[in-house]
Amino acid sequence: MSAHLEFADKNAVYAKTFDKGELPVPPSKKLLIVTCMDARIEDSCYKSLGLELGEAHIVRNAGGSARDAFRSILISQRLLGTREIAVFHHTNCGMQSFTAPQLRNLVKSDAQSKPSNEKEEIEKTVDDMEFYEFSDLEGSVREDVKFLKGNLLVLNQTKITGWVYDTTTGKVRQVV
Amino acid sequence: MSAHLEFADKNAVYAKTFDKGELPVPPSKKLLIVTCMDARIEDSCYKSLGLELGEAHIVRNAGGSARDAFRSILISQRLLGTREIAVFHHTNCGMQSFTAPQLRNLVKSDAQSKPSNEKEEIEKTVDDMEFYEFSDLEGSVREDVKFLKGNLLVLNQTKITGWVYDTTTGKVRQVV
Repeated sequence: MSAHLEFADKNAVYAKTFDKGELPVPPSKKLLIVTCMDARIEDSCYKSLGLELGEAHIVRNAGGSARDAFRSILISQRLLGTREIAVFHHTNCGMQSFTAPQLRNLVKSDAQSKPSNEKEEIEKTVDDMEFYEFSDLEGSVREDVKFLKGNLLVLNQTKITGWVYDTTTGKVRQVV
Repeated sequence: MSAHLEFADKNAVYAKTFDKGELPVPPSKKLLIVTCMDARIEDSCYKSLGLELGEAHIVRNAGGSARDAFRSILISQRLLGTREIAVFHHTNCGMQSFTAPQLRNLVKSDAQSKPSNEKEEIEKTVDDMEFYEFSDLEGSVREDVKFLKGNLLVLNQTKITGWVYDTTTGKVRQVV
């Protein structure tokens, strides 16, 4: 069964007791969090960090990549006033399980039965893509923080920290 | 005060009762959700849709853009087995409050006092960036679903739906 078929019923229950009303658009803690799309990170930015609704922008992508999050960070800083960035990567991340050449080969091999014009387009797209995979967890956090600190488009006064979230214990640890 | 100074204390309370243990990496509902980084979307993918930990990848970025989420979607489908995508945009979104030329001008004007080599780099970067802003909320959901359905790198059998989340009522509504 498709998961989306349950959204309406489940949401009706949720909306019945929804009492947040209209909060301001800019995050009240001027905070932006970058973390992974991983299914085991539950409201990591709310319950696990003690944040409340309306306090922080939450950007999530494969790996919690700050490079991939750059468009969102720019919009968040320039238009919605955030001045602090916390990057979270996590233990046992899918991004540590492959290399870009392996993934490119996998996609190309899946496309073998396609018409040749489609195959060419798929190959070109995947060859041009960055995947931001990593092998060293703490190193990847440090590198993302370094990327943000050295980026001319990230505002000078931004506080930038880097963290690891442990998916088996729920604990966070500051790396940088 | 920096928000991150409270992370360790708040997280210690959370981790004390954390009892999820080690869940599998692939999302059990084979579902990926794309939604906005907006601070008013609280665990929209858990409580508001009745999802449980471990069931879905959650990608969040400025606007809930499927184009911006494309790298994450590819990794999620090819390496972690997801076969359904639900795109959520929301009411009163920051992405409806600007145009790309306005944002580019704002960034360039902020850079006026920088050395000329830095100014040039900033101008080039921001001129080359896509921001995926939109004026028509439902139209933007339809366009993202169309982008995914027409994308040769999204697997054929993927179920793709598009939704609007109302930040004042907590209600979701299917658009496509």
